Amino acid sequence: MAGRALKSNPAAAALWLGRRPPQALALPDAPAYHSAMDARSDPLLDRLAAIVGARNVLTDPAETRPYLVEPRDLFVGVARAVVRPGTTQEVAAIVRLAGETTTPILPQGGNTGLVGGNVPDQSGRMVVVSLQRMNRIRAVDAAGDTMTAEAGVTLAAAQEAAAAADRLFPLSLASEGTCTIGGNLSTNAGGTAVLAYGSARDLALGLEVVLPDGRIWNGLGRLRKDNTGYDLKSLFVGAEGTLGIITAAVLKLFPRPRASETALVGVPSPEAALALFRRARAAAGPALTTIELMPRIGIEFVLRHVPTARDPLATPHRWYVMIELTSPVAVGLDTTLAAILEGAIEAGEAEDATVAASLEQRNAIWLLREAISDMQKPEGGSIKHDISVPVAAVPELIARASAAADRLIPGIRPVPFGHLGDGNIHLNFSQPLGADKASYLARWDELNAVVHAITAELGGSISAEHGIGRLKRDLLPGVKDPVALDLMRTLKAALDPKGLMNPGAVLAE
Amino acid sequence: MAGRALKSNPAAAALWLGRRPPQALALPDAPAYHSAMDARSDPLLDRLAAIVGARNVLTDPAETRPYLVEPRDLFVGVARAVVRPGTTQEVAAIVRLAGETTTPILPQGGNTGLVGGNVPDQSGRMVVVSLQRMNRIRAVDAAGDTMTAEAGVTLAAAQEAAAAADRLFPLSLASEGTCTIGGNLSTNAGGTAVLAYGSARDLALGLEVVLPDGRIWNGLGRLRKDNTGYDLKSLFVGAEGTLGIITAAVLKLFPRPRASETALVGVPSPEAALALFRRARAAAGPALTTIELMPRIGIEFVLRHVPTARDPLATPHRWYVMIELTSPVAVGLDTTLAAILEGAIEAGEAEDATVAASLEQRNAIWLLREAISDMQKPEGGSIKHDISVPVAAVPELIARASAAADRLIPGIRPVPFGHLGDGNIHLNFSQPLGADKASYLARWDELNAVVHAITAELGGSISAEHGIGRLKRDLLPGVKDPVALDLMRTLKAALDPKGLMNPGAVLAE
Repeated sequence: MAGRALKSNPAAAALWLGRRPPQALALPDAPAYHSAMDARSDPLLDRLAAIVGARNVLTDPAETRPYLVEPRDLFVGVARAVVRPGTTQEVAAIVRLAGETTTPILPQGGNTGLVGGNVPDQSGRMVVVSLQRMNRIRAVDAAGDTMTAEAGVTLAAAQEAAAAADRLFPLSLASEGTCTIGGNLSTNAGGTAVLAYGSARDLALGLEVVLPDGRIWNGLGRLRKDNTGYDLKSLFVGAEGTLGIITAAVLKLFPRPRASETALVGVPSPEAALALFRRARAAAGPALTTIELMPRIGIEFVLRHVPTARDPLATPHRWYVMIELTSPVAVGLDTTLAAILEGAIEAGEAEDATVAASLEQRNAIWLLREAISDMQKPEGGSIKHDISVPVAAVPELIARASAAADRLIPGIRPVPFGHLGDGNIHLNFSQPLGADKASYLARWDELNAVVHAITAELGGSISAEHGIGRLKRDLLPGVKDPVALDLMRTLKAALDPKGLMNPGAVLAE
Repeated sequence: MAGRALKSNPAAAALWLGRRPPQALALPDAPAYHSAMDARSDPLLDRLAAIVGARNVLTDPAETRPYLVEPRDLFVGVARAVVRPGTTQEVAAIVRLAGETTTPILPQGGNTGLVGGNVPDQSGRMVVVSLQRMNRIRAVDAAGDTMTAEAGVTLAAAQEAAAAADRLFPLSLASEGTCTIGGNLSTNAGGTAVLAYGSARDLALGLEVVLPDGRIWNGLGRLRKDNTGYDLKSLFVGAEGTLGIITAAVLKLFPRPRASETALVGVPSPEAALALFRRARAAAGPALTTIELMPRIGIEFVLRHVPTARDPLATPHRWYVMIELTSPVAVGLDTTLAAILEGAIEAGEAEDATVAASLEQRNAIWLLREAISDMQKPEGGSIKHDISVPVAAVPELIARASAAADRLIPGIRPVPFGHLGDGNIHLNFSQPLGADKASYLARWDELNAVVHAITAELGGSISAEHGIGRLKRDLLPGVKDPVALDLMRTLKAALDPKGLMNPGAVLAE
């Protein structure tokens, strides 16, 4: 990955840390920055401490490290300090100070991002602004189906607050115990419920944002429709902190599902899986909330390495589809699912299927899907891609990318799985059996190039849901429409003329 | 409406023209601009003719008038010419020529907009760029549930193309026979299916846009998920042609409903209607595609002036709710609706209800809702507001605005109706019985101010779905967060530094 300014550590790419316990980033008891050797020599830190209090300015490497290392250890950043504001006004004061002193800023949520947009660069100039202390649910309007949450609320806490009001906040990710609403919005997070409910952008009605000049935009409207001007909200969502700092959001809530039906289906091919998806969508419409594709090898990895996992189907199948239907009422869901499965088996789209008869059985099916990525780890190195293509092109993507990867690295083991209904496949490749892990991972960029070229030919995206960050920044000019890229630069220059907001993420400085 | 630069004609406000037949804007047979008296003296017209052909440069007042008068005759514009490009390249060439000659441009679709953003100002400097000739459906991808349509495709034609592929394009508006996809997107159009499917912005996956500098942004991606940078699409959608010209779009398609159930419910109050909405949403979830509120007076206007209309309920009720459930499968919809209605009647939320037993009965119920606005016309002057508030605040909005209006103009007849589930009420007021129409309409701005003040107090919007255009431009600074307004100006200056794209719409020049 020539030209990348940051430390790249592909050898550590497979060291996926999984869900990081929230306490890893807990607040130290004592004032923090005093413990740093050179803290007293930096007047900026005094001014930051005057804003947030000394205990919320961290410089001790032992304390700052959790904010500087991202989950896969691909990037290790260096920060001038980590500050932990507790209010929007404090964030605004920090940003104004940064502008005055030309200090680059990195807004950070739960630090679970996978593309390095969530950690600082190695210049040592950046101040990490952690939003984790801004973790209040400001309001739940159950009647209006909205919730106002601060940026540092974890996704799990947001889900729980919604459930406590008998509502659903549908965003759902593997890292939901740690990742935050601010980070979810800044990266336009996806997950397993996008098909029915949309990505993070679709789930936000309004935002509060501290702009690069330190002003606060109060856009916390709770309106379902508002055509009084440009869609500012959508611009900040997905901008990865490069246009401002999201400090709070009004989120959409939904009725809680009262009924769900979950099936695991053995299918002969991705083409058959696609036919099954179309059948299910036509039959169930919006009740089809999840449809995930998995290859046999992914199931095998989970069965091999997770002691509690079991295969609910009698014989192995080359491919699997997990289908979940949910509904606010129980009427007819089981009938609908049975009709889908019967029709699919008759049409040859499915070979076998099982429907969960209990919550335990449902969780056993979900485990097979959710553990695949982690269970690649004991199988050696994994080179990953977060690809989307038009839904109909998913089979061709998998076939062509798998064949091309095997030509490049004979014996490579493709593990393509993910959100079939969104056309979003996590196109991961485990190393050949018996290969040397470091030598395999050294070919990361080479394999990326092959897969991304096929993706481009299919009109796809090299980042369906993880964003660009620092990991894919230098790939972007090769795949993005140059006019679009230039528009992005124009917007960045207009909103952040000093270039202080997460510089080096998404766009080159 | 002091300070508005354009001709304001409140006396004509009630002269709603309804659906304008498409042939009103048909292409003349002969070369057009030669017939204008002074056409030869304007070298710009020769250069435009070199791009689009002489027959597509209109200057004859008889030919240009349909492009210069908006549906309510509130604004009558003057244009240097009307040009009708047939391709994106022609649009780009026009925009480049406009930049070179500092010629302001007005992009126009079906000219059905209600806030004057769709007609030029009175300077005579603007060139109207009508997209109506760009009316091709470029592709229908039924398997991928997408359709690529040019800007000039009428909404009805888009719906038909989707239906021909056994798919649903759900956007639905009264003007759908005339309004175009480009206009729908540029104004982020709403309508009666927003609750289930979202507004126009939510229905677009990708765009093709001619930028103010004449470059073409090809953003016609068909991806459900793409996190490779800022959300450019959402910025152009709803910008009312002030940031560029949308020339084509990739639209989302959905399974066609196979079953629908429609009920008309008599309810005692807006509060009861809101309780009924919550009940229906909890019970039916995404199957609840339409829920509309109507006052008795609106039903009476329709019964009085539409010979074929009839009241399907035995006795009058103070308020009515129309509910429609749709589903791709028939299973359980009737049961769900029956349970909703029975529960509502038991709880006192509903007084009486009828469920359509045939398509004819369904259409009779829809007629009561759809004809209200038009049937205000024979009742005299109507002063209109397109308001949204948080859904839970709808009853308070109606009560307070109705009382305040009556204090201002005793005997005024509130006719608040619309999209209850979106919190979007068309807060129209018919003149008092026996009042003088012109004197009544002369108080348009005065009543606006009263209603908009209450709207602001409730955290609402003065334009839920019609946009800002020229009609509400000078109201915007009074209701919009000043930081948001400044951000809008920053974006406008960055993308259209010469200020040539629909100048005077949305933002003051």
